[in-house]
Amino acid sequence: MRPFELTLGEAADAVANGELSPVELTRSVLERIEAVEERLGSYVAVTGEAARRSAALAEREIAAGRYRGPLHGIPFGLKDLIDVAGLPTSASSRVREGHVAQADSAVTRSLFDAGAVLLGKTHTHEFAYGLTTPQTHNAWDQGRVAGGSSGGSAVAVAAGAATFALGTDTGGSIRVPAALNGVVGLKPTYGLIPRDGVTSLSWSLDHVGPLTRTVRDAALVLSALAGQDAENPAGLGAARPDHPLPRERDLKGLRIGVPANYYFDRIGPEVDTAVRRAIAQMSDLGADLVEVEIPMARYIQATQWGLMVPEATAYHERALRSVPERYGPDVRVLLEAGELLSAGDYLRAQRARTLMRREWGRLFEQVDVIAAPTVPMTAAEAGQDTVEWPDGTTESVSDAYVRLCAPANITGVPALTLPVGRDHAGLPIGMQLMGPPMGEALVLRAGHAYESVRSDPGEVAVVTA
Amino acid sequence: MRPFELTLGEAADAVANGELSPVELTRSVLERIEAVEERLGSYVAVTGEAARRSAALAEREIAAGRYRGPLHGIPFGLKDLIDVAGLPTSASSRVREGHVAQADSAVTRSLFDAGAVLLGKTHTHEFAYGLTTPQTHNAWDQGRVAGGSSGGSAVAVAAGAATFALGTDTGGSIRVPAALNGVVGLKPTYGLIPRDGVTSLSWSLDHVGPLTRTVRDAALVLSALAGQDAENPAGLGAARPDHPLPRERDLKGLRIGVPANYYFDRIGPEVDTAVRRAIAQMSDLGADLVEVEIPMARYIQATQWGLMVPEATAYHERALRSVPERYGPDVRVLLEAGELLSAGDYLRAQRARTLMRREWGRLFEQVDVIAAPTVPMTAAEAGQDTVEWPDGTTESVSDAYVRLCAPANITGVPALTLPVGRDHAGLPIGMQLMGPPMGEALVLRAGHAYESVRSDPGEVAVVTA
Repeated sequence: MRPFELTLGEAADAVANGELSPVELTRSVLERIEAVEERLGSYVAVTGEAARRSAALAEREIAAGRYRGPLHGIPFGLKDLIDVAGLPTSASSRVREGHVAQADSAVTRSLFDAGAVLLGKTHTHEFAYGLTTPQTHNAWDQGRVAGGSSGGSAVAVAAGAATFALGTDTGGSIRVPAALNGVVGLKPTYGLIPRDGVTSLSWSLDHVGPLTRTVRDAALVLSALAGQDAENPAGLGAARPDHPLPRERDLKGLRIGVPANYYFDRIGPEVDTAVRRAIAQMSDLGADLVEVEIPMARYIQATQWGLMVPEATAYHERALRSVPERYGPDVRVLLEAGELLSAGDYLRAQRARTLMRREWGRLFEQVDVIAAPTVPMTAAEAGQDTVEWPDGTTESVSDAYVRLCAPANITGVPALTLPVGRDHAGLPIGMQLMGPPMGEALVLRAGHAYESVRSDPGEVAVVTA
Repeated sequence: MRPFELTLGEAADAVANGELSPVELTRSVLERIEAVEERLGSYVAVTGEAARRSAALAEREIAAGRYRGPLHGIPFGLKDLIDVAGLPTSASSRVREGHVAQADSAVTRSLFDAGAVLLGKTHTHEFAYGLTTPQTHNAWDQGRVAGGSSGGSAVAVAAGAATFALGTDTGGSIRVPAALNGVVGLKPTYGLIPRDGVTSLSWSLDHVGPLTRTVRDAALVLSALAGQDAENPAGLGAARPDHPLPRERDLKGLRIGVPANYYFDRIGPEVDTAVRRAIAQMSDLGADLVEVEIPMARYIQATQWGLMVPEATAYHERALRSVPERYGPDVRVLLEAGELLSAGDYLRAQRARTLMRREWGRLFEQVDVIAAPTVPMTAAEAGQDTVEWPDGTTESVSDAYVRLCAPANITGVPALTLPVGRDHAGLPIGMQLMGPPMGEALVLRAGHAYESVRSDPGEVAVVTA
């Protein structure tokens, strides 16, 4: 196995044992980037020279006995919405031409403090306001979309072009590309991870989180990121929690909710089969399956868009007035639409959210975790705008990808996606595990147990030139 | 002294000592209502029979040794926005015709649990959306406005027609009428007092609080009200705090901020003189005066209205569509104006509030309490729409009354108003003491010390037929 193929956990163990040098690992990943990047388009900028220097520094520190922990010397990609002092934060947009970040974001600081090695900035759908990331190609089929908005991060991790990466998730932007590229993505509890220095899409829905190749890897990154920050307005003020995974791999006593409505409606048959099979495997591992009713299902979409659209427009107010022509046409039309919404529309969405949060709180009195598809279909073809469902309805690809992710953004509950197989074309299928607020340990435990009985956890996509 | 003239503290002491019976006290206050109500119009409904029964029950409980504390057997008025099971909550509006509350509000329950005796429901400006309360007349001059929106509560307390009362405060609605009628009013920290069962005006600005004749009385009521409630979405989750007043009456070591801008701009000269004299007296009591700069002063008014107007309209959405003609013209026009505001306007106000809260947090690192006028002028004549200031500017009476109160609603900090003298016409002048979030003890301490050196604390207005 070449170093770039190692999962974060495997690489960390090898580095800790002295079997792998951070320099060697970083070189392998940079070579992999060189080999596949032309076909994938996952990076806005690769900072190879700085990465090699950081890796060399990590190597010296570890050799001197100053090992910082599992991220020490591990190379990662950062979605280009996240500030690194001295680098542009392009947001994959012409609006940001000439921008240079003055300071590291809180999560950048956390990863640097943990000794991780920055490889570069990965592509986002422009300002995170879309579900495809058109600059980037799916790791498994370059004629398919990467998913978005953290498409570059997901593709880089899937292809071995980063050992892990960070993304952001406002309506599924970590989970959608993670599912479409067969990697793990975690949207943590709202407010758990500080967002300062991260470009906002919709501040009441935005989350930062990891994209990795295994559930264990996600837990390792989460432990480095979660914590309080004085400048974090959404902060939970909690002490930095640790997220160790349990050693036992059974799920005895865990109540897994299986939605009777909403999540299995209007989904592709192969997605349905793969997710239900994964749920059955968790039952075999000892979990109790409980049928649950998703509350207020018909308000989910209107609530998500009713919150996101005006908040996004408010954030872009000035640039939209001064340089509207620099936005891509899809993002510009969404931002301009936001100007037409009334305060009443926004307040209705806020009130619906309040009720929805309460109802989901009750749901998590019945079950520990809810298992469901992450997205209703695998990666769409590049340029595909709509999808037709067997019930005769048509849906935009964006709406389809947001639909099953939005509840966890609206309610703020943690949601983990992990691969549960492939469709007939070899495209990855994702399962989503949601838990109660601050229930990261529950979803990680369930995901890790499932993953441990799979044949191919952490595999890297084959990218042929 | 007749029992209705007693302050809550005096009455409570007399009841506890067996010198005064709740029945006698309640009878005295009901007779006072009978004597003055025609001239004041402070009550929507007086529930005399029920009050006499509650007083008799309190008398029996106390005689049997089951004394519940300082509110036991004390008669009070409740602003008619606050639910009492079985009674209409009229909100002083025709929109509520036929309404009957199904359950007690949280604060009603707290007062009933404390053994207090409900006298009736007091007038509010319709749905709390105004600063005059036109049904009610000022306790000191019936040709003048009561102030609003808790005008009935303030006038009843000032005139001896209630030993204490509750009001609500969204942009000054406790403090304005308290100041204009020479009583004490406390708007506590946002979220400290549960609001369930209280008709909302603007949920992110609404507060419930006491109107009393002394600062000590306000502390006694606050102790009964403050606490957590599972159904309180704005709840602070704090244990029920107690608010005992310190015995010593000096202010040594207390840093009192005196605003260099905003609060003393465009105020009447008699208000200026009286408040500055009161501040000087607090300095004589040992407080250190510190000049402070009020941050973001020019955004205060836009932020207050930008939050309040759309939230109020959202609350009234249905009734405004079905029975618009039942609203008074002033309230209807405000509610309809709310439909014209964009989501961007509201979000700008929310963002300004976030910044303002942070800046006020810094202010309270420099000082313990800020002292300022409560309102820029004494009670306006009934029907007066505007006020002219010496600088040549004209302001609506409503804007003038909201102007100095709004910052504590926007930032959520506790604010106490207490009387500091009268103008040449004998109309009361109020001083406002603001503290950091959860700093009720600080403002109560400062107010109590000032009050203890006044000649006439707790005096009842003379109302001549």
